Amino acid sequence: MKTHTLLMPLDMHLHLRDGVMLETVAPLSSYSFSGALVMPNLVPPVITLEAVVAYKHRINHAIGKLDDPDEEALMADDCFEPYMSLFYQNYTRAFLSTVKDEIVAIKLYPAGITTNSEGGVKSFDLDAMRPTLEAMSDLGIVLSVHGETDGFVMDREAEFMSIYEMLAVNFPKLKIVMEHITTKAAVEMLERYENLFATITAHHLLITLDDVAGGMLRPHLFCKPIAKRPEDREALLHVALEAHPKVMFGSDSAPHPQHKKEACGCAAGVFTAPIALQLLCELFDKHGKLENLQAFISDNAQNIYGLCPEFKEVVLSNRPFLVPEKYGDVIPMFAGEHIGWTIESVN
Amino acid sequence: MKTHTLLMPLDMHLHLRDGVMLETVAPLSSYSFSGALVMPNLVPPVITLEAVVAYKHRINHAIGKLDDPDEEALMADDCFEPYMSLFYQNYTRAFLSTVKDEIVAIKLYPAGITTNSEGGVKSFDLDAMRPTLEAMSDLGIVLSVHGETDGFVMDREAEFMSIYEMLAVNFPKLKIVMEHITTKAAVEMLERYENLFATITAHHLLITLDDVAGGMLRPHLFCKPIAKRPEDREALLHVALEAHPKVMFGSDSAPHPQHKKEACGCAAGVFTAPIALQLLCELFDKHGKLENLQAFISDNAQNIYGLCPEFKEVVLSNRPFLVPEKYGDVIPMFAGEHIGWTIESVN
Repeated sequence: MKTHTLLMPLDMHLHLRDGVMLETVAPLSSYSFSGALVMPNLVPPVITLEAVVAYKHRINHAIGKLDDPDEEALMADDCFEPYMSLFYQNYTRAFLSTVKDEIVAIKLYPAGITTNSEGGVKSFDLDAMRPTLEAMSDLGIVLSVHGETDGFVMDREAEFMSIYEMLAVNFPKLKIVMEHITTKAAVEMLERYENLFATITAHHLLITLDDVAGGMLRPHLFCKPIAKRPEDREALLHVALEAHPKVMFGSDSAPHPQHKKEACGCAAGVFTAPIALQLLCELFDKHGKLENLQAFISDNAQNIYGLCPEFKEVVLSNRPFLVPEKYGDVIPMFAGEHIGWTIESVN
Repeated sequence: MKTHTLLMPLDMHLHLRDGVMLETVAPLSSYSFSGALVMPNLVPPVITLEAVVAYKHRINHAIGKLDDPDEEALMADDCFEPYMSLFYQNYTRAFLSTVKDEIVAIKLYPAGITTNSEGGVKSFDLDAMRPTLEAMSDLGIVLSVHGETDGFVMDREAEFMSIYEMLAVNFPKLKIVMEHITTKAAVEMLERYENLFATITAHHLLITLDDVAGGMLRPHLFCKPIAKRPEDREALLHVALEAHPKVMFGSDSAPHPQHKKEACGCAAGVFTAPIALQLLCELFDKHGKLENLQAFISDNAQNIYGLCPEFKEVVLSNRPFLVPEKYGDVIPMFAGEHIGWTIESVN
């Protein structure tokens, strides 16, 4: 049996939702990750200091961090930091100064592009956005971007490259993260602009549109951005397996209740949080690149975001793991199937 | 109110299934169409004379043609001819001679490419296929082809063009119908080879992959071949609206029970038979091409296949039609929505 140890795994793009769903999914991330960048696309979106603080409190409650505040020795799975984000709007510098210690990023959504993004950016009016983006640049707040246009579904990300380009050129000190990239076009941008970074999901390293719609239609593999072509996946795999220093893991794990996935109109999102480390070990091991996983899963994110997560050690082995059929009311990727690696211990 | 009359509408690509499903869907086609080319991908596939005759009998029973054989005056919806097809295998000339009067086409499926196609062609071995295809050519049996490779889902049809080319060149007198074409690449083939023809569905004139997977995932719009890019739909629309003489309507209406469409793995097929004429009137009218619909819906098919359908006159008007939520256990395209045209009478 082969084992592999990961230190302080970070999930730099995570949807924890709210309410009952938050209670279901947050402990699944806090168990094996040291921290996660939590997306702000709630209803209503997270746009105030109060909302950030309150949401962080609800997350910490959901993972049991606040259950027994007097207890000195925290459990390993209490060592989980929800790195908070705001939903992008044009904010004042004064506001950003007051909120900057509570967040690490502001997440920009083009309006209507994915789940709960109706309040997003309607047009990329640089003059209107400049004060906000300059303040973010000065205050060291990362701009996290869902980079898709409203064009044809297979072209949306590639079409967005000109907007990344405009942002990167106009705000050269602003760190911009191209979230959950799915295309060769986005991978190529990493070399072109110093201030462009990227997250990559586990599922986009594993699937193409063929898996979603090539045989049967698989609603549980349907996500935004949609999985693309084989050559796109190859480009993503290459930078992930090499742990390109500008690339980080971000699961984009996005839970929906089963009835919203298996219906006439299926919601977008793949749920991978509880199986992400196992999948990545299997994938990196298969390609003989296990030694690079530490950088992809944590070190690169620490460097890019300047994070110092609390210690957590996750030991995995290549013992097969039977993925549960459900976590609460959420069907995970590979539900009921065996994947190659198991989490043996978390300390 | 505008009205439009269609004479002897033909659906040159129809799945009627068998058993209870046949009883449900066959009357919906026989009501408004004069005839349809019935696909042979049953379980097991239709590969013998006996199976053809028995299936045709079950179809005629399902549409009520056999209910009262003594009755002299048949109802209008009894005037429906199921044009039968065989499932392609390598057949002997002797066999094809005995079956030729019972069928108009042989349908070729690459193995495993769509519903119930497991017994299809595994490799296009021209030497092995030559006797069959030459006999078909001599006997005037049309070769109907599901033209997809097992490549990446968006490329499958375009990749198949070289096989169409090989067939068209090697069997210049064989009429080959490229079924349910979805790409600009296939449209372009029509001009290149005299013996290549095509059917086009209603849904591929209306949707692209955006409608299937660009917003929510829509299982009831999922079909094979999958809907392609906007420029592909434009190319299809162009030849359909112009009623290109080598192009015919074929609905590829493919019913599945609701539970097979709204599930973890959704079966491929869009159910349009009962709304196809209404949709086409709306579409052709919108583009100012209503006068071309008669050729697309019937005349071209009569010419290509040499058919003489019984008289049927369908009068439609631009009065909105509320599509039922269900036909039996089958959810149609546009279920519960209004479409622009209604069937007013059938004589």
